[in-house]
Amino acid sequence: MNRRLVDLARDLGLDPENRAYIPYGHDFAKIDTVAAGEGTAHGNLVVVSAVTPTPLGEGKTVTSISLGMGLAKIGESALTCLRQPSLGPVFGAKGGGAGGGRAQVVPSDRINLGGTGDGQAVGAAHNLLAAMLDAHLRHGNALKIDPARIAFSRVTPVNDGSLRKVITGLGGPLNGVPRESFFEINEASEVMAILALAHDRGDLRKRLGNIVLGPDQGGAPVRAEQLGAAGAMSVLLRDALYPTLARTSEGTPVLLHAGPFANIAHGNSSLIATRWALTRSPWVVTECGFGTDLGLEKFVHIKARLGNLRPACVVVVCTVRALKVHAGLAKAVLGKPLDQAVLTEDVSAVEKGAANLRHHLRIATNFGPPVVVALNRFPTDTDAEIAVVEGIAREFGAGFAVHSGFADGGAGAEALARAVVKAARPTDLRYQYEATGPLAQRLESLARNVYGAAGIELAPAARTRLAQIEKWGLGELQLCVAKTHLATTHDPADGGLPRPFTLPVRDVLVRAGAGFATVLTGELTTLPALGARPNAVDMDLDPVTGAPIGL
Amino acid sequence: MNRRLVDLARDLGLDPENRAYIPYGHDFAKIDTVAAGEGTAHGNLVVVSAVTPTPLGEGKTVTSISLGMGLAKIGESALTCLRQPSLGPVFGAKGGGAGGGRAQVVPSDRINLGGTGDGQAVGAAHNLLAAMLDAHLRHGNALKIDPARIAFSRVTPVNDGSLRKVITGLGGPLNGVPRESFFEINEASEVMAILALAHDRGDLRKRLGNIVLGPDQGGAPVRAEQLGAAGAMSVLLRDALYPTLARTSEGTPVLLHAGPFANIAHGNSSLIATRWALTRSPWVVTECGFGTDLGLEKFVHIKARLGNLRPACVVVVCTVRALKVHAGLAKAVLGKPLDQAVLTEDVSAVEKGAANLRHHLRIATNFGPPVVVALNRFPTDTDAEIAVVEGIAREFGAGFAVHSGFADGGAGAEALARAVVKAARPTDLRYQYEATGPLAQRLESLARNVYGAAGIELAPAARTRLAQIEKWGLGELQLCVAKTHLATTHDPADGGLPRPFTLPVRDVLVRAGAGFATVLTGELTTLPALGARPNAVDMDLDPVTGAPIGL
Repeated sequence: MNRRLVDLARDLGLDPENRAYIPYGHDFAKIDTVAAGEGTAHGNLVVVSAVTPTPLGEGKTVTSISLGMGLAKIGESALTCLRQPSLGPVFGAKGGGAGGGRAQVVPSDRINLGGTGDGQAVGAAHNLLAAMLDAHLRHGNALKIDPARIAFSRVTPVNDGSLRKVITGLGGPLNGVPRESFFEINEASEVMAILALAHDRGDLRKRLGNIVLGPDQGGAPVRAEQLGAAGAMSVLLRDALYPTLARTSEGTPVLLHAGPFANIAHGNSSLIATRWALTRSPWVVTECGFGTDLGLEKFVHIKARLGNLRPACVVVVCTVRALKVHAGLAKAVLGKPLDQAVLTEDVSAVEKGAANLRHHLRIATNFGPPVVVALNRFPTDTDAEIAVVEGIAREFGAGFAVHSGFADGGAGAEALARAVVKAARPTDLRYQYEATGPLAQRLESLARNVYGAAGIELAPAARTRLAQIEKWGLGELQLCVAKTHLATTHDPADGGLPRPFTLPVRDVLVRAGAGFATVLTGELTTLPALGARPNAVDMDLDPVTGAPIGL
Repeated sequence: MNRRLVDLARDLGLDPENRAYIPYGHDFAKIDTVAAGEGTAHGNLVVVSAVTPTPLGEGKTVTSISLGMGLAKIGESALTCLRQPSLGPVFGAKGGGAGGGRAQVVPSDRINLGGTGDGQAVGAAHNLLAAMLDAHLRHGNALKIDPARIAFSRVTPVNDGSLRKVITGLGGPLNGVPRESFFEINEASEVMAILALAHDRGDLRKRLGNIVLGPDQGGAPVRAEQLGAAGAMSVLLRDALYPTLARTSEGTPVLLHAGPFANIAHGNSSLIATRWALTRSPWVVTECGFGTDLGLEKFVHIKARLGNLRPACVVVVCTVRALKVHAGLAKAVLGKPLDQAVLTEDVSAVEKGAANLRHHLRIATNFGPPVVVALNRFPTDTDAEIAVVEGIAREFGAGFAVHSGFADGGAGAEALARAVVKAARPTDLRYQYEATGPLAQRLESLARNVYGAAGIELAPAARTRLAQIEKWGLGELQLCVAKTHLATTHDPADGGLPRPFTLPVRDVLVRAGAGFATVLTGELTTLPALGARPNAVDMDLDPVTGAPIGL
């Protein structure tokens, strides 16, 4: 329970006196994975995904943390790999991303407030490139970049909706060239996706150089490397490339590293952390953003394909209340108390909403590795309701376990840990679209095979962009679909029950440094805003202890 | 030489096992000065200032570091308090701010790249307030803030000139309210000045709440406290409030803390660091930005007056080449080799330029504490030239010593250390303007008594603003004059030789959280820009060692 961070490091074969172990305050240490020695991967990789989430979240992080602690309880040591949560939304309306109850990474306040500052390093590197781009325009634009077609943003750590669309470069020619521009949140930066996908420092450097800023006046892509920016950006990211070791509330180890968004980016923690973890721990638990159609699909086709990962098990988190919400019993709204109907036994609603679970189990089982359904139990769930979920898991040949990690910590996840150990078998993934070939064709495979769509419908802008990408020689990018997480389709109004649909593609963004093309299937916000009464208003430091309150 | 950081901590009475000692990587530790215990101040405070600098810098940081090391060499232990350098200019055209040669804080690359991230924390806190301000406008503007008169910026860590003037809030009502706005660099933030001037956590919290954002439609000031932002801002600044312990290249201790600009802000390291240092070390050396007319004047009237500091000695750094440049022998341009004339013996040029030294010695000696002139010796300086400088020091009853800390480290600063020890005598400061009374009258005293101006000339905007400040009940703010550092007057074209002048005041900015009114006497840039070929282009990580190159 009260093991120190240095003890956890020793368990992982790290000597805390060695320079590979870099303390960051009393609660975190960064790990220089190269200096630590990479070793041979021998661990079992368990990937945690979920059904279509409600706005309340289904406890995927809680489940990932509980599972790591549960494995420890049954005598199997595990290392849990998570994303570093975004700082901005904590001040808005969202909670943090460090788990909750008795299944937390501690101290959760420090983690939710930016941890070891990697997000800020990403922001500085991103904004340095943006500044060099605008300085290039102002000092003669030798590369003939087309100022009206620049596709590269600036980023900010806070939820600052009024920076979504701006005009920069005003105030005269000494300041810059006026143009319309936009800001995103640090975690939406392509630089964050690059950090999460880089194999090593050299690969990071190369990917940063490959960032496409926009076309020149002849229509050719202009890259960060041409501005000479990638070296300086990698200097700013030197320490951010090291995963952060932290502890759970039960003293088990966690690696936090990179926090790419699961819509515009691929929503998985870093490849560096996962691969290193597999060399140091017999069990590695990692979590993907949103449902199997988003984070897990991107885990498979982007992260795992790139890193030759062979997961031993996929865990699909499900809650009774989510299925009830998907059945249409009530609307879940963040910050509002749940409708009483959701908290009352209703087996038929669970059966109706279970169409959503079936949808995700079809997606998950198609990828190949054994699947376990983890029911994150709430106090109001009844045995009859739970039996419905278990029955559906059995239909798909999946394992099943109830866990109560939020209330009981690792002790509440022993059954889940046993179910995972029983099911686990490292497996070659069955990719649902090819790694190469025409982009539109690969996208169609993805839409059909994963989403269950009848096909895709390309808007003229998307068609033009796909042709441009192939003309630029970037046809071998992977696909990163920006799609609502609140429905099985592209339309959040559809909710969690699948329906026949065709996927409309509005536009495509080039993220050549990250190695993917972002496919836009709806409006998406890459910079959250603050509401009329943001959480920040209730925050303060305790005048006596100095501890944050209101987080 | 190779003493570890934990050994330095023990020398300062800190137990590295105690939670007051917070390691940040292998090279830095933050000190929770409250948890460490404040104790009684018994140290001698030595304040390092300079003549009017040339664009090349006169080695003030090198002198401060050398002096600390030189004191150690002669058996006196010293703690040197410096500002945390700004990240942005390192990628532009400026060098770092961690000293140089054999008088550095190490590792200088990490320090120049942001150290322990305090600047980024300041940026996040500042930008959270800006986001809450714009969200307030968008959600009905209950406080009736006048959007056209908002005086609060956003900040960025990079030299991004194209953000100096922007229009934000575009793209429709869900994003925000369109208005003209501006960005500054993190170090120009009022939040940075507050961090540097706060007595403790409670004072920080209060000052953050006192930030004036602009007038409401009735002309009354709207403060950060009214938006409910100050608590959340102080949460973001929790760790930034702890000074950073680091080592010099000779293993002596340094505290880095806060990096306010010496023009728009007061240009001195934090009061918290200086006061704590005085309880732990018999000698404390601290540096102020630019010449005695800027950093030292602000040290005296803002930092020392607030903190009841009684300096034992003021060191005025002078170089032979600066006096030659001030004599008009050549123009010094950053990044260009120095004109040969400056490098050749020319006693009469030194005598002519010495008018600048006399100007600064008059300012420094008027403040009361004993003064020592530190000649930062360059290899081309001749004995005859040095004798001129020594003669002028004697005219003012000041001590004098030559040092060669850049080339020789502490051994090259032993004579300077002895001169300081000999002169030192804790002294009540003679303030050159009153702490209270009409602002214009106090400003006139400052201009006459410090700058040697014949008086002040208030532009109509400045006059209106001063009246507004007094109407707002803020007449007791101190004065923070933004004035060129390259001349004794307000006009950089005047150079270093004093001439009769009247100080023109263009405008006045309210910085009620920091506790001063910023008096603008010329155009000033609070956001540097990148040139046609910024330093960033030459930076990279060494592919083998991973160490930054090109910094």
